[in-house]
Amino acid sequence: MVEASKTNGVCLVIGAGDGVGVAVARAFAADGLTVCLTRRPRNLDQLEAQAARIRAEGGKAHAFGVDAREEDEMVALVDRIEREIGPIEVVVFNIGANVRFSIVETTTRVYSKVWEMAALAGFVTGREAARVMIPRGRGTVIFTGATASLRGRDGFSAFAGAKHSLRALAQSMARELGPKGIHVAHVVVDGAIDGAFTRGRYPDIEERLARDEVLKPDEIARNYVWLHRQGRSAWTHEMDLRPWTESW
Amino acid sequence: MVEASKTNGVCLVIGAGDGVGVAVARAFAADGLTVCLTRRPRNLDQLEAQAARIRAEGGKAHAFGVDAREEDEMVALVDRIEREIGPIEVVVFNIGANVRFSIVETTTRVYSKVWEMAALAGFVTGREAARVMIPRGRGTVIFTGATASLRGRDGFSAFAGAKHSLRALAQSMARELGPKGIHVAHVVVDGAIDGAFTRGRYPDIEERLARDEVLKPDEIARNYVWLHRQGRSAWTHEMDLRPWTESW
Amino acid sequence: MVEASKTNGVCLVIGAGDGVGVAVARAFAADGLTVCLTRRPRNLDQLEAQAARIRAEGGKAHAFGVDAREEDEMVALVDRIEREIGPIEVVVFNIGANVRFSIVETTTRVYSKVWEMAALAGFVTGREAARVMIPRGRGTVIFTGATASLRGRDGFSAFAGAKHSLRALAQSMARELGPKGIHVAHVVVDGAIDGAFTRGRYPDIEERLARDEVLKPDEIARNYVWLHRQGRSAWTHEMDLRPWTESW
Amino acid sequence: MVEASKTNGVCLVIGAGDGVGVAVARAFAADGLTVCLTRRPRNLDQLEAQAARIRAEGGKAHAFGVDAREEDEMVALVDRIEREIGPIEVVVFNIGANVRFSIVETTTRVYSKVWEMAALAGFVTGREAARVMIPRGRGTVIFTGATASLRGRDGFSAFAGAKHSLRALAQSMARELGPKGIHVAHVVVDGAIDGAFTRGRYPDIEERLARDEVLKPDEIARNYVWLHRQGRSAWTHEMDLRPWTESW
Repeated sequence: MVEASKTNGVCLVIGAGDGVGVAVARAFAADGLTVCLTRRPRNLDQLEAQAARIRAEGGKAHAFGVDAREEDEMVALVDRIEREIGPIEVVVFNIGANVRFSIVETTTRVYSKVWEMAALAGFVTGREAARVMIPRGRGTVIFTGATASLRGRDGFSAFAGAKHSLRALAQSMARELGPKGIHVAHVVVDGAIDGAFTRGRYPDIEERLARDEVLKPDEIARNYVWLHRQGRSAWTHEMDLRPWTESW
Repeated sequence: MVEASKTNGVCLVIGAGDGVGVAVARAFAADGLTVCLTRRPRNLDQLEAQAARIRAEGGKAHAFGVDAREEDEMVALVDRIEREIGPIEVVVFNIGANVRFSIVETTTRVYSKVWEMAALAGFVTGREAARVMIPRGRGTVIFTGATASLRGRDGFSAFAGAKHSLRALAQSMARELGPKGIHVAHVVVDGAIDGAFTRGRYPDIEERLARDEVLKPDEIARNYVWLHRQGRSAWTHEMDLRPWTESW
Repeated sequence: MVEASKTNGVCLVIGAGDGVGVAVARAFAADGLTVCLTRRPRNLDQLEAQAARIRAEGGKAHAFGVDAREEDEMVALVDRIEREIGPIEVVVFNIGANVRFSIVETTTRVYSKVWEMAALAGFVTGREAARVMIPRGRGTVIFTGATASLRGRDGFSAFAGAKHSLRALAQSMARELGPKGIHVAHVVVDGAIDGAFTRGRYPDIEERLARDEVLKPDEIARNYVWLHRQGRSAWTHEMDLRPWTESW
Repeated sequence: MVEASKTNGVCLVIGAGDGVGVAVARAFAADGLTVCLTRRPRNLDQLEAQAARIRAEGGKAHAFGVDAREEDEMVALVDRIEREIGPIEVVVFNIGANVRFSIVETTTRVYSKVWEMAALAGFVTGREAARVMIPRGRGTVIFTGATASLRGRDGFSAFAGAKHSLRALAQSMARELGPKGIHVAHVVVDGAIDGAFTRGRYPDIEERLARDEVLKPDEIARNYVWLHRQGRSAWTHEMDLRPWTESW
């Protein structure tokens, strides 16, 4: 039922520094794609370990140290992957930058940095994906959103600002690139996600996990693979994911 | 990976009169569920034929003639299914009522009728689903939406009114029933759907279908099954489905 | 600056049973319009007293006992006002029906009744307004919304359902009738409103009022008059009103 | 009815380079406020002429050449106005940056620049307004939005991105600062606005203006003054403004 192009080629995950990015890479690798994971250069060692783990599980994985805010680095990365590894069929943009400050305590530096990481890097990623996908007339681009993608809140001028930008990018790209055969989707992931940050925050994390009250990266990842596999007669552009117990 | 309860029990499809309802039933039947299809009593013969076709494909299917706007009929139907067939694990509400009239030409009769079919029947369906699912602490309820669920438009006071109500119902139920273990989702299906109506409207329907420019009921149905199979750590409450070429 | 037609003619307020309806009538009367107030027939005595009070303040006011859900009554009312009193320049629909029940405790009777009062009556009102305004190419129709107009919530399947319908009506009418010279607006009034209900609910109502933490009907009314006075080069179709301390 | 503080003090308009900014300044000046207009330094001569014109009409007006993206300049400007002219009661952020490019033709430079002008400058403006208003427990901050504030569109990744950020800022600030007495509002101005750009674009501009099909800056400005004058028991946080003939 699923076309060959859906289980071949490269899946590029920008921002594989947390549980979600790695889980997404593993899920696409399990589905047959060659996965390319990126993090900032200083974390390359840890990323190499993740790639090795995926290879040990039988997948094809490569790790790259890249600053996704830097246009030149991203252009070079995409060109290199296309040349040396294979056609990029899926791009997942997964860099977050969740901070919370009252408005007067939000420095220009923080405001700009959050935007660079969560919006500018998303734009560069999306544009470079479009550049190689348009000539082929196919491809999937998925942006990870958050509740802050949908509304501003006390203390979230920087984070909600960047996340709103990213959703506007996803919508603009979806409307332009859909008719060119490229599937662009924005996924609002709402709630605590299992990982180092959440484990440090909740003393009762094990109970919460046992009750499925925390988003499991593997579950999120399954949905990303699902989006890629959707037939083009029925594409999803926006969906949310949250634990059953989450209020919203 | 998928729990046993996901591929067992009954899937009740309210409004199996168009391609989507039947396709949804077939998809859940293929996944192992016993499907119960409903249409208004006067169309029961056609529905029986659909059920027979599903059974011929190896599925378990039952047809019921019910007016979903009638509380008594729906209560009796749900009780009978629970008693005679099995626990209702999935309910899909799929009755539409797309009409377009300028505001002064919209009669009270039309306005009320559209609401009865697309909103009141959805409420009765949703409430009866909740009634039997709450004690079990599990179940999935999916409402079929449309673009008119999201905004009003010239000529759509009746249809958008009913569809907005249905989305409000889905959100209200999702927020109340999520923490009780029941997954409530609203799917905005946006675009022409393959079926008798669309085939009569587009002379070039075959070309459109060949290019995937028309929503295919089987593709829609696959997404409904997907929603039911989502793990409860990452549930989708709202998603859209539209052809790649659709402007929105 | 304001055209003559803005301070002449009739302002019809459907649902003048609470503080907002009466305040809106008083504000338009103070602006020079002849106000026609309606409530259900059984409350006509109280409404007559309100009309008398407006007349004592120098305004022109008439009271009518009408069930706005009844098409015939509304058609007759509008015709009579147009014939005997003057051209209807403003219509305000202000009937609410705020109830809260869990989904399984929401009876079909409640669900239908809330829709009849808050949505069907709004439709009849809006359509009858359109009928007499379209030939004149001018007029203002304002619908009173609530937070429940924007999203469903636990316990609000009936109320949010009706309020969502009303907003869909306002949007559909605005898009159709704007180019015909008719200004249709939807105002989300979010928060407790000063009146008998709120006064009974908050023991510290006087302190709250002194701190402006409760919506004052006269303030709401000023905004409705403002909407009517907007020049047609810059019309507002949707706006919210809430106290400064309200969280949202 | 209107408090003294509403018709006194300073109204600071950031981005008075187009018709809207100047009209807003004139309207607040006519209402009694001392207006401070800013544009980038290179356009200071033209801005001085606008200020002189307001003074000739009997208003109090000052012109400043400032790059609103530069934190230091904005901090210094706000401090200087507070010290030398008076307390800032109203701040209007009115810098736009409407560009349209396909995604692959959107350079990082354009993407960043549009964000700097329409979002970063808005953040700096909003934060500096908050800084001086919070201690006084009052003030009004108005952000000028656009349709691109609400959804992305083909070609608008940069502009919609920045405008979405600005709306997220307005919502975040409104929720944080409302309970501190500061009224934050976001106005979606949707449609062509009378001015040099529109006059160059439409050969039939005079007919369009005569028919009110183009937004008139003075009408927009009246609504901004209205927002400032709203009593705090009923504040508007979001409203739209569009010509009667505009489709949306």
